[in-house]
Amino acid sequence: MRMVDIIIKKRDGEELTKQEIDFFINGYVNNQIPDYQVSSLLMAILLKGMTNKETFYLTEAMLYSGDIMDLTKISGVKVDKHSTGGVGDKVSLIVGPIIASCGAKLAKMSGRGLGHSGGTLDKLESIPNMNVNLSEEEFIRQVNDIGIAIIGQTKQLVPADKKLYALRDVTGTVDSIPLIASSIMSKKLASGADTILLDVKFGSGAFMKTVNQAKKLANIMVEIGKYFKKDTRAEITSMANPLGRAIGNSLEVKEAVNTLLGNGPSDLVEICLESAATMLLQAKLVNSLKEGMQLAKTNLDNKKAYEVFRKFVIYQGGDVSYIDNLDKFEKSKYTYQIKSKQDGYIKNIDALTIGVSACKLGAGREKKEDIIDYSAGIYLNKKVGEKVSNGEIIATIYTSKENIDDVLLDIYNAYSFSTKPVKIPPIIYDVIE
Amino acid sequence: MRMVDIIIKKRDGEELTKQEIDFFINGYVNNQIPDYQVSSLLMAILLKGMTNKETFYLTEAMLYSGDIMDLTKISGVKVDKHSTGGVGDKVSLIVGPIIASCGAKLAKMSGRGLGHSGGTLDKLESIPNMNVNLSEEEFIRQVNDIGIAIIGQTKQLVPADKKLYALRDVTGTVDSIPLIASSIMSKKLASGADTILLDVKFGSGAFMKTVNQAKKLANIMVEIGKYFKKDTRAEITSMANPLGRAIGNSLEVKEAVNTLLGNGPSDLVEICLESAATMLLQAKLVNSLKEGMQLAKTNLDNKKAYEVFRKFVIYQGGDVSYIDNLDKFEKSKYTYQIKSKQDGYIKNIDALTIGVSACKLGAGREKKEDIIDYSAGIYLNKKVGEKVSNGEIIATIYTSKENIDDVLLDIYNAYSFSTKPVKIPPIIYDVIE
Repeated sequence: MRMVDIIIKKRDGEELTKQEIDFFINGYVNNQIPDYQVSSLLMAILLKGMTNKETFYLTEAMLYSGDIMDLTKISGVKVDKHSTGGVGDKVSLIVGPIIASCGAKLAKMSGRGLGHSGGTLDKLESIPNMNVNLSEEEFIRQVNDIGIAIIGQTKQLVPADKKLYALRDVTGTVDSIPLIASSIMSKKLASGADTILLDVKFGSGAFMKTVNQAKKLANIMVEIGKYFKKDTRAEITSMANPLGRAIGNSLEVKEAVNTLLGNGPSDLVEICLESAATMLLQAKLVNSLKEGMQLAKTNLDNKKAYEVFRKFVIYQGGDVSYIDNLDKFEKSKYTYQIKSKQDGYIKNIDALTIGVSACKLGAGREKKEDIIDYSAGIYLNKKVGEKVSNGEIIATIYTSKENIDDVLLDIYNAYSFSTKPVKIPPIIYDVIE
Repeated sequence: MRMVDIIIKKRDGEELTKQEIDFFINGYVNNQIPDYQVSSLLMAILLKGMTNKETFYLTEAMLYSGDIMDLTKISGVKVDKHSTGGVGDKVSLIVGPIIASCGAKLAKMSGRGLGHSGGTLDKLESIPNMNVNLSEEEFIRQVNDIGIAIIGQTKQLVPADKKLYALRDVTGTVDSIPLIASSIMSKKLASGADTILLDVKFGSGAFMKTVNQAKKLANIMVEIGKYFKKDTRAEITSMANPLGRAIGNSLEVKEAVNTLLGNGPSDLVEICLESAATMLLQAKLVNSLKEGMQLAKTNLDNKKAYEVFRKFVIYQGGDVSYIDNLDKFEKSKYTYQIKSKQDGYIKNIDALTIGVSACKLGAGREKKEDIIDYSAGIYLNKKVGEKVSNGEIIATIYTSKENIDDVLLDIYNAYSFSTKPVKIPPIIYDVIE
């Protein structure tokens, strides 16, 4: 078998066999196939597509390129969720404690943020002393004890993806649905959970720009899940506007805690309860979505979920006094208020601009080696649909950086206004299973 | 400027600017852009195409990546021709002497054969002591003296092409018309001639399989020539069947000499006279194709062209006694005769099979480092349209290899037969200017 023949076959629009895909992935991981052949194949895949079968085989080859987590020592159903990334997405911090309080087990491996999109590990690390590097033994023990643990990767999961992603990033081959789907699903499958809930976001602040792209990606990921006989479902959710009001690491932790205390913004509460209901159904802890929703809402309202969150922080070494008194979180050096220059209603808040701006304020990384300012970020005093008067504060900016006039202007310009009342758009557009 | 943005632009079907193409070619030649980015761009170019403008800029960037021959010290019009390669193509060895005898100047740099396609330098080297490595001074002096010299590359012409071709070969990105056109034309332009005649072949034994592909390639190459203000024309010729009767290095030299002596096969004579006429018109030595044809025919018939060929061999150190007595050429160890198993007419002789078979007999290289057996090859005793009786010899095989039963069978199977008379297909399908 020769790599060049595999490239030509895909270039000419033919379907690759399992053997050919295995040859490519194994050869690449073992450094027997050079980058320049792989990047040519990746471009051919991007432009010619892959059938579902090819995508299954690709996911399989990537999955078996490294270690696979063994979670069999955790009792009960191990559920997992994955978001394709957005702005202000702190859902895992809320849904995790809710479902754990209901009896599901969340043994989750998360990632860090890059660019305008935040990462759960960074958010957790804004809690002083919070440790996201547990040993596998500690990880399993904690999930058995309190139903939840969220950590970074312990083993070498899916090395093929690491190598492929670095190459895709510099060769214009990121935006391919089969490549994105196999990348996400190989990592999720390697994490060892029994069920997977995917939150596929679309819109300005998401990787997928349109609802149709998001549906395509969700469909193939759900199909991959079925191929591996895992209960896999996907929500298609809007990332036209940021989720909730807080963007930035400790700001988002505080919003998550407030949500667990019953004071969450409505869009965030909605997506958290819907997601929790689906995960509880996947875990067979309830018999219907409706029952799942009731159980989730009960454990949010009675603060059982909040109590799990506190335990989760304590178990992972975090200073829980910060959770008990949110004012303890370190303040940014500077605070700015952005005020409306007109009367009316908020029509839209461009999520990408808000995400990029938060990053520039210090809340994210532009390059992998950048250091995050946990206190930096943006609080949206006004959200889409809310009424605003001339001079009223629409956003509060937290940063320790100087010379950010451009960023402040960008944030103002991310808002668009309407003189007439604005209907709040839905958050969840579709569920695919 | 970032290479990844250039890749994405082309991937998304947009037109690259001159600056972007220069950045890519210069960066690649200077080792500032890695192979893996270039191969991804090449695949995007193959699948998304290039506009004429982009192809001009690409050719220009490649042309200026290395040395350019200065032929101004040669008096008169310097003409050049290029064939996209075929089986039995010894046209340069005949046309060169014809046009030189008429006053045109052929200062030609040629290549070697690879795979089923022969190379002019290898054919010339089958003449004992023939030297294709002249210094630039010797080269120019010889063309001024006798009107013709054919040598290998002296300077570092188009290093970008050398690097790109090696990469295309292993990344499935050979078959792209703009990449092929810019590769050929950058080398022809760097060779410094005033006019260029292209022989774009199509059919089984050619790189382009259909007449439409060949026309497309010819059209863009002629456009590139115009962009550089060179008189550039292209013949579209059939390579469904081998050209002439001889395939293999010294066999082809002998056929070329016999053609110059007035005993050439009709298809070969036709293409040589047509090509010579066009080149004489391009050199402004005649006022019409008809006049060019008459002049070419005259100098073929009166042996002036033959005399130039003798001088050409003598000037480049070749042993002219072999030309004077063709029987002196070394014989292959073995000779086989292939006989017809039926009565009828020859309908077709698959050029690719004949070319590949000649290569297997020792006449060509499968890998660059293979050594050629100059005596090996195939002589087609029967050509398309000729009548044949059961038991009559249709081909004679020359080789020094053993165990070639498979090859003999392939050669027999390359022939197809008809019970009814067969019309001989045309050789030249179109001329583009």
